[in-house]
Amino acid sequence: MAMVCLSDFEAYAKKYLPKIAWDFFAAGADDCSTRDENIQAYKRIRFRPRMLRDVSMMDIRTKLLGTEISFPVGIAPTGFHQLAWPDGEKSTARAAKAMNTCYIASTYSTCTLEEISAAAPGGLQWFQLYIHRNRAVSQQLVQRAEALGFQGLVLTADLPYTGKRRDDVRNGFRLPPHMKLKNLEGAFEVCKMSLLDPSVTWNDIYWLRSLTHLPIIIKGILTKEDAELAVRHGVQGIIVSNHGGRQLDGGPATIDALVEVAEAVQGRVEVYLDGGIRKGSDVLKALALGAKCVFIGRPALWGLAYKGEEGLQDVLRILQDEFRLSMALAG
Amino acid sequence: MAMVCLSDFEAYAKKYLPKIAWDFFAAGADDCSTRDENIQAYKRIRFRPRMLRDVSMMDIRTKLLGTEISFPVGIAPTGFHQLAWPDGEKSTARAAKAMNTCYIASTYSTCTLEEISAAAPGGLQWFQLYIHRNRAVSQQLVQRAEALGFQGLVLTADLPYTGKRRDDVRNGFRLPPHMKLKNLEGAFEVCKMSLLDPSVTWNDIYWLRSLTHLPIIIKGILTKEDAELAVRHGVQGIIVSNHGGRQLDGGPATIDALVEVAEAVQGRVEVYLDGGIRKGSDVLKALALGAKCVFIGRPALWGLAYKGEEGLQDVLRILQDEFRLSMALAG
Amino acid sequence: MAMVCLSDFEAYAKKYLPKIAWDFFAAGADDCSTRDENIQAYKRIRFRPRMLRDVSMMDIRTKLLGTEISFPVGIAPTGFHQLAWPDGEKSTARAAKAMNTCYIASTYSTCTLEEISAAAPGGLQWFQLYIHRNRAVSQQLVQRAEALGFQGLVLTADLPYTGKRRDDVRNGFRLPPHMKLKNLEGAFEVCKMSLLDPSVTWNDIYWLRSLTHLPIIIKGILTKEDAELAVRHGVQGIIVSNHGGRQLDGGPATIDALVEVAEAVQGRVEVYLDGGIRKGSDVLKALALGAKCVFIGRPALWGLAYKGEEGLQDVLRILQDEFRLSMALAG
Amino acid sequence: MAMVCLSDFEAYAKKYLPKIAWDFFAAGADDCSTRDENIQAYKRIRFRPRMLRDVSMMDIRTKLLGTEISFPVGIAPTGFHQLAWPDGEKSTARAAKAMNTCYIASTYSTCTLEEISAAAPGGLQWFQLYIHRNRAVSQQLVQRAEALGFQGLVLTADLPYTGKRRDDVRNGFRLPPHMKLKNLEGAFEVCKMSLLDPSVTWNDIYWLRSLTHLPIIIKGILTKEDAELAVRHGVQGIIVSNHGGRQLDGGPATIDALVEVAEAVQGRVEVYLDGGIRKGSDVLKALALGAKCVFIGRPALWGLAYKGEEGLQDVLRILQDEFRLSMALAG
Repeated sequence: MAMVCLSDFEAYAKKYLPKIAWDFFAAGADDCSTRDENIQAYKRIRFRPRMLRDVSMMDIRTKLLGTEISFPVGIAPTGFHQLAWPDGEKSTARAAKAMNTCYIASTYSTCTLEEISAAAPGGLQWFQLYIHRNRAVSQQLVQRAEALGFQGLVLTADLPYTGKRRDDVRNGFRLPPHMKLKNLEGAFEVCKMSLLDPSVTWNDIYWLRSLTHLPIIIKGILTKEDAELAVRHGVQGIIVSNHGGRQLDGGPATIDALVEVAEAVQGRVEVYLDGGIRKGSDVLKALALGAKCVFIGRPALWGLAYKGEEGLQDVLRILQDEFRLSMALAG
Repeated sequence: MAMVCLSDFEAYAKKYLPKIAWDFFAAGADDCSTRDENIQAYKRIRFRPRMLRDVSMMDIRTKLLGTEISFPVGIAPTGFHQLAWPDGEKSTARAAKAMNTCYIASTYSTCTLEEISAAAPGGLQWFQLYIHRNRAVSQQLVQRAEALGFQGLVLTADLPYTGKRRDDVRNGFRLPPHMKLKNLEGAFEVCKMSLLDPSVTWNDIYWLRSLTHLPIIIKGILTKEDAELAVRHGVQGIIVSNHGGRQLDGGPATIDALVEVAEAVQGRVEVYLDGGIRKGSDVLKALALGAKCVFIGRPALWGLAYKGEEGLQDVLRILQDEFRLSMALAG
Repeated sequence: MAMVCLSDFEAYAKKYLPKIAWDFFAAGADDCSTRDENIQAYKRIRFRPRMLRDVSMMDIRTKLLGTEISFPVGIAPTGFHQLAWPDGEKSTARAAKAMNTCYIASTYSTCTLEEISAAAPGGLQWFQLYIHRNRAVSQQLVQRAEALGFQGLVLTADLPYTGKRRDDVRNGFRLPPHMKLKNLEGAFEVCKMSLLDPSVTWNDIYWLRSLTHLPIIIKGILTKEDAELAVRHGVQGIIVSNHGGRQLDGGPATIDALVEVAEAVQGRVEVYLDGGIRKGSDVLKALALGAKCVFIGRPALWGLAYKGEEGLQDVLRILQDEFRLSMALAG
Repeated sequence: MAMVCLSDFEAYAKKYLPKIAWDFFAAGADDCSTRDENIQAYKRIRFRPRMLRDVSMMDIRTKLLGTEISFPVGIAPTGFHQLAWPDGEKSTARAAKAMNTCYIASTYSTCTLEEISAAAPGGLQWFQLYIHRNRAVSQQLVQRAEALGFQGLVLTADLPYTGKRRDDVRNGFRLPPHMKLKNLEGAFEVCKMSLLDPSVTWNDIYWLRSLTHLPIIIKGILTKEDAELAVRHGVQGIIVSNHGGRQLDGGPATIDALVEVAEAVQGRVEVYLDGGIRKGSDVLKALALGAKCVFIGRPALWGLAYKGEEGLQDVLRILQDEFRLSMALAG
């Protein structure tokens, strides 16, 4: 089976992953309408291609908060990578480094931050944070990440509670016994998602700021009003995201929300996007509508499921080639 | 089979109810386009979710004409509950009381108002009325309901004649011999729907007002013009409803009609909605567009069909959990 | 099998008619997109139903150019009724008379005008005319029709050439040897459609006018410009029609075209419509958008195929009941 | 099997061509959304048909840069005709001449320009050019074409690199060993597409102009901006094209782009279109929206696959008949 486009990796993962793991990665909230809309929305956006421009030399590198990456696609934070590949997040980190792009490691990793960091020394890594009811846990995580050389702190804003993913409920989804949320082991005997703090507000950005020198990127913004608040509270970056349609069902596609966010931000901070990226031309559309970079979630997991770090590199390389070709063809 | 969402109850009911009963509950008029549109219309409405708000404490209680209920979902009037569960409307009444919400008992109940009232003493119950050609019948019903402690009178305005539901015609639908329209037994040897009075007009609101001290809620309003007339004729509440798409096929979805009704009413009376509610986020959308409360019809019957009052409580509890979660996730 | 709605008759006809006859009646031009759009367009039109109006007495009669019919649905001109039922157009004429409505007999009838007229003495009948290259043929037909008591002359304007109906080409469609275009037998040894005159223009209305005292109704108008021309050339009525989608594929649905035609005409002449009528509520939509009456084509043939004149009466009766009910429910 | 419309030829070709050849001809870039949109877009365009015009005599001839053709449909440049029929482009040339229309021979023909020219002496032929990195190759081709009597030079502007056609990648598509890109044989040992020059810009139009007296037509324009540039750089014609959806996926349908191009050009040069033409009424729509002529790509290959030059003539004849009929029916 030739792996020609990202859908091929999706088909592979669906076929070979245990159903419970596939369902977990694929899950959307409720009717999955926002999850699916993330993808459909790209199809409604049409290029106005320009011809006869010299496209023999194209520079597709970009910078994330000053650090260069090879092309504007990074790895979004997703949990439980050992469900996809034995080495879990260590493989993810290696693939991101090999492709010279940014990897956002999740709080819910099945490897420790130390392992992730050590797997790809010198690679560009950000750390994604959920704020726990016990703030000391979060503080300790932030400071560990900073000490380990993570270069950005990504605060997820859209998960005061976990969305309702019907298949996970039906499957009684939980991590297999041999996997652990390793980053939280030191802090709790048992770590449950319900320990996330639903009372977090914009003021907690100031608290985070007081803990770390790392740039703060806020993930989960979908409206111009929240984008304005994010800028005013001093974040360095915004990820337009609906958590892959896994949280609130019925919200907008991220590519649609990007337009109003980018317009509100007016370049004061960097704006990124995740959700629905399946082709290089999707990346180009997001950039044309105001994103500096996009991040992939599920496709990265499909790549891992296919062949670990090698499979993820394949996914990134395909996106890179498609992105470069789309740029050339769109002039 | 895990009952995770309302569709699970629908699938159960479709599988286990006698076809003639399922068809009757599921029926829409003509091509069922309005019935289906009731549901589709929600999918076109998109939230603008806000982040980083303190959602640790949420109060989802509301008041219907001054009486508190635990969350803004009540039971719409539907007939013939014994088709779904042996105890019929008595089970419905018990479930509504257990969940502390409002139950609108139908004129076409297969239990008497007395039985319904006795099944859930102290529960919030309204009585739904069709006006019969013999006004004495209707007067007697209203006065019985008031005497029994029903706290509201819901006048159905959209059934001068019964809509054409093809499957019911094909099935030759009629109540099984051991079930009766018990509330009408005292009045007629044989009670037929064709005894409903198609000459009812707005002036009959004054006649109803003269019969009872109960607040009058009018059900079946779909336009701003009729909403204005309802307010002027002194009703206390309006239920935006198209009778679940069982009457005129080709009218608007209720969630679409709600917008113009709420705008016309401007808070002068309470506005509710029924039709198409299948998820907690649908409830939130209706509230965001001006409804004070919504009522469920078919989903309540599916709950009854599953496990009687227990099944209906399951349905209500799922909606409650989903509604609370949607509120939190939408900020 | 209960015949509950017009689709039931369609299913019956599809099952029991010879394929070549079914295909001929069902055919649309090219991709059949206009044929199908005729039906789809009704689904996009939504009522704004009004409540609490006295609908105990409703008068659904109307007048066509001064002659009363029992309800605003007549029989559109279609050819070759013997393909559907042995008695052919004689049965059609009887059914129309029994239901007290108007029948437009086609030039391409398989019964003579004399037979049609004699089958339903006193019934309201119009005659549909194609203009032949040999004008004497058309003149003779018009004068025969007038002499026989036909009360209107319907000139079809949209068939300078026959549309391309792929299935008819594939089937090599032609009338079986025992059927004849009887009205043209006196005039030609062999009568071919290609004898129709593609050079007919608006001026030929004056020529028709000079031949007869009958009111002239023009069929096939789809634009306001042509509606204006029709009025100026002195016709008494306009049938908005796209020939059931059998001529030019890619034109508008008739219910959509009706709006601009009715607006242009401003009541100066009567406006009718054919195409896509499948339910009583479709009739109501057409009337609400400016038609005085609608005509049914294929559904009449399905009725004939079911049980001859009795079947066609069933079809008309169902439409009548549905129309009356829709009126009541829409207030 | 009767060949009634172009879809019949498509079905035939799909059934009888080797899969690898069918896939190559059918391929679109990425998700094929632009390829499919080319066809869907026609369905959204509706005629406003006019009646009672004298359509007994219609002249469907037109002129391409002064040369008369029998009707406004030519053969678009496509490669590798020997994949469809042994005689390849020679058959295509013969069919075009027999139908008195224009054939644009591709750089990637499997016959030489000399063979193509000799196959149809006196036929109207244009030559389609890709500009190679080695400009001498292109110069030689242009001059050969001019010397052979080709009457126009069509510069393809939308292929700086080849689009990503997934099936071709999966099939490992390449020409069978016995077929050659014969026009390039003299110039290269091995000829690869990657020898195309991605640095071509508008200034290269001046270079082309300096090589030849032939009119230059630019193919691949989709925006008003590029249309304006084309006019300013002195081309004689523009083909609105997205390369059959084989290059950039996500661009507009050509019939949609035609509107803005024709408006920008204002008749200063001739505007043509290719992409999505499947029926005579599509041709009429394109002409109504500003095209002087359209070109067919895949349908021509289906015709070849059916019966070589005879099959292609069938395709052209069907389009011609349908176009004439559509014109008559649209008035």
